[in-house]
Amino acid sequence: MTAGQDDIDALIEMMAKLPGLGPRSARRAALHLIKKRGVLLVPLAEAMTRVGATARECLNCGNISTGDICDICESNKRANGQICVVEDVADLWAMERSGVFKGRYHVLGGTLSALDGMGPDELRIPQLKDRIGAEDVSEVILALGATIDGQTTAHYIADHLPGITVTTLAQGVPVGGELDYLDDGTITAALNARKAL
Amino acid sequence: MTAGQDDIDALIEMMAKLPGLGPRSARRAALHLIKKRGVLLVPLAEAMTRVGATARECLNCGNISTGDICDICESNKRANGQICVVEDVADLWAMERSGVFKGRYHVLGGTLSALDGMGPDELRIPQLKDRIGAEDVSEVILALGATIDGQTTAHYIADHLPGITVTTLAQGVPVGGELDYLDDGTITAALNARKAL
Ligand SMILES: [Zn+2]
Ligand SMILES: [Zn+2]
Repeated sequence: MTAGQDDIDALIEMMAKLPGLGPRSARRAALHLIKKRGVLLVPLAEAMTRVGATARECLNCGNISTGDICDICESNKRANGQICVVEDVADLWAMERSGVFKGRYHVLGGTLSALDGMGPDELRIPQLKDRIGAEDVSEVILALGATIDGQTTAHYIADHLPGITVTTLAQGVPVGGELDYLDDGTITAALNARKAL
Repeated sequence: MTAGQDDIDALIEMMAKLPGLGPRSARRAALHLIKKRGVLLVPLAEAMTRVGATARECLNCGNISTGDICDICESNKRANGQICVVEDVADLWAMERSGVFKGRYHVLGGTLSALDGMGPDELRIPQLKDRIGAEDVSEVILALGATIDGQTTAHYIADHLPGITVTTLAQGVPVGGELDYLDDGTITAALNARKAL
């Protein structure tokens, strides 16, 4: 086989590593890309190259950013005294799609988990404490999953932020559910019905 | 939003067009790529760029190739007088994975279908006829799906290749099944038990 076939095989192998794709669907996807070379494969390769060259974590909140500080952290309009704490960037995106939250975020990068060796220092919790004073924060909204680890993390954060209002999404988050699976209306309802922790 | 966020949104939008991925799984996959930037996103972008620059259809058989003529058509070892006719490159890949076929291929690019307006000229059937004499072909093996359109196509080809042995995969192909779903053993059994059409 030539180097070209090796490239196609490498393409399929890497695509099979994406969540949601197995070996067979990766082959189908690669074929689809090659057939739609001009309108899909080449633009996708270009978008990946650009994102690969620029994407990084916001030094302030952990959001994905193309600079040291993300758009949301840089925008004065988002400095309303509220910080919404999420586990993952996917949850931040879900909150943004609902359009109901106007403040800033803090992406933990996971939840506390003794089993997985995830302690507060692995979770960007020290950085959250630093932001409270620096950004004149009046309320921390915990938008964590209704899982045991999510709730453990919520209580840990509430216990370690004395003197500040800590609220949590309440109504609408199904028990055992993950935030990124919720529709916009459910997120809106949960945010509006948030309660003090 | 900056141009960077636009790139991420474009990346997600294009990934959602891949078979097997919807909007949500495309977001998950994009996040996974960004998190694994160095080991997955950048290499995948490079592989896509290379494949996008070189991949094309083999002028002889319709296989995906990085030159005008694919490796299989260029290899004298594969000139054993047998041509295996498949609907799609995915089916060719499935045959190659089974490792049992030693000849060359001819990729139709679909099946005859009055409904979809697919006639013989849309299907690389004229090129198949041209190859019979040019490549000293003794047998054409029809490895088409056991669907109505697949079998219609098989009979059409058999009727239009007078004076040449035309066989078809038989045992092992489930009724209504598509070739790319079969395991290697089933393909091997079907090829070994092929019968004259
Ligand atoms: Zn930020
Ligand atoms: Zn070829």
